[in-house]
Amino acid sequence: MAARFRYRRRVEFAETDQAGIAHFSVFFRYMEEAEHALWRAAGMSIAPRGQAGWARVAAAFDFKSPLRFEDECDIFVEVTEAGRRKVLYAFTFTLGERLVGTGTMTTVPVNKGADGALSSYDVPTDLLDRLRAQMA
Amino acid sequence: MAARFRYRRRVEFAETDQAGIAHFSVFFRYMEEAEHALWRAAGMSIAPRGQAGWARVAAAFDFKSPLRFEDECDIFVEVTEAGRRKVLYAFTFTLGERLVGTGTMTTVPVNKGADGALSSYDVPTDLLDRLRAQMA
Amino acid sequence: MAARFRYRRRVEFAETDQAGIAHFSVFFRYMEEAEHALWRAAGMSIAPRGQAGWARVAAAFDFKSPLRFEDECDIFVEVTEAGRRKVLYAFTFTLGERLVGTGTMTTVPVNKGADGALSSYDVPTDLLDRLRAQMA
Amino acid sequence: MAARFRYRRRVEFAETDQAGIAHFSVFFRYMEEAEHALWRAAGMSIAPRGQAGWARVAAAFDFKSPLRFEDECDIFVEVTEAGRRKVLYAFTFTLGERLVGTGTMTTVPVNKGADGALSSYDVPTDLLDRLRAQMA
Repeated sequence: MAARFRYRRRVEFAETDQAGIAHFSVFFRYMEEAEHALWRAAGMSIAPRGQAGWARVAAAFDFKSPLRFEDECDIFVEVTEAGRRKVLYAFTFTLGERLVGTGTMTTVPVNKGADGALSSYDVPTDLLDRLRAQMA
Repeated sequence: MAARFRYRRRVEFAETDQAGIAHFSVFFRYMEEAEHALWRAAGMSIAPRGQAGWARVAAAFDFKSPLRFEDECDIFVEVTEAGRRKVLYAFTFTLGERLVGTGTMTTVPVNKGADGALSSYDVPTDLLDRLRAQMA
Repeated sequence: MAARFRYRRRVEFAETDQAGIAHFSVFFRYMEEAEHALWRAAGMSIAPRGQAGWARVAAAFDFKSPLRFEDECDIFVEVTEAGRRKVLYAFTFTLGERLVGTGTMTTVPVNKGADGALSSYDVPTDLLDRLRAQMA
Repeated sequence: MAARFRYRRRVEFAETDQAGIAHFSVFFRYMEEAEHALWRAAGMSIAPRGQAGWARVAAAFDFKSPLRFEDECDIFVEVTEAGRRKVLYAFTFTLGERLVGTGTMTTVPVNKGADGALSSYDVPTDLLDRLRAQMA
């Protein structure tokens, strides 16, 4: 079984909608928050002091059951691929024993130029080593 | 070629992030806004007076190029499947001639019970007819 | 000196804007989150199972210094008035020794009718007692 | 009577909460959107190409009646003070004949340094002239 990092998140009132559940767009924010928490756990910031960090090139989520105000959801993160120009993540959301949903994100490292343009680059391998070590 | 509905959306300042671009979670809100605009164009509200409307069971987006503050993005919506218990949408985002990204959403009609629980149901066929007529 | 409840909040990436700081609207969400954390600390939910909870009738914030991605801000909450139809809060945000800003919120209890209309009501006094006890 | 600029905004589904109304933090975003629309109407962008624009040093709102999904709110903007280092705005929100609320914002122009630090500066007077001309 792959190693997984756990991030716990409480649903805030502003994140609910008139259906009485957490709005679907919020789950994409939660995936990103879990990713960033993993990086912190590995001793790094994913976007230090105003840097652009990692751009998302793909994101998807399958919703299985809703979250409600003050639910405390467990978000399990796996790094499914870690390359110098691309890192893939898989996410499983649960509320106690109940499956809330699963998602994926594909991310690429980007630098912001003087004109604001973003360009990708090869991240140092030791950064990937630290991320992998955190997952082991 | 399939009929497409167009929704134009300007990127607001609050939707940008420290990378200087529209945050990736915003694109999921834009897809939903475009869907709701299509329903209005068809003479309906997708969630009248506090109703739950249509829950998302899947959503995905592939990001091709970024959007920035005050960019006016064209969002083209296609209804790729319209059943009484499920409607699928495909979205293409462009900025002038540039492709911004493509996405999909799978939605199911839900009612909110007295206890707040959501359950799906068969929507009236004339509702689907109106949606299809708008796309023709 | 008045008793204060402390809520700690980390700034998430999605909450930053292209100025590289937490967007000003986020501070209003933080105030509400701190309020709700206080209620939980007092053994209550401010809006159980889909209820409307407490509506805001006024909110204000004075911004003294910015917050950035991954800053961990301390939010101190005071209940400055607690009546059966109105509760007032004052908030002080700090980052370490630095003052980030101060804010206020005026809230009224509301019920949601069958038609979705909101109306205010007198909350039970023991609810206010519990809130006061938590602050003591 | 002071000149006023009008911005119309439809409430989106993601902006509602479990009380069935637009979340209170959304009104602060709407004020900012109306401010930025005023700048565009005056032929300017308030934050061109990744710039920091104008920081908020104070914001307040008094809520008189709720907004719901798909309500189209009129937001009237007044520039109540326009200096080279500070511009103040007053906002009135209405839904048809009904008053939704009133708010204020105090803004200061800021530049972002190479290290990301923000500092205020004197804006050119012709910029203020254009803003005033738009209001006349």
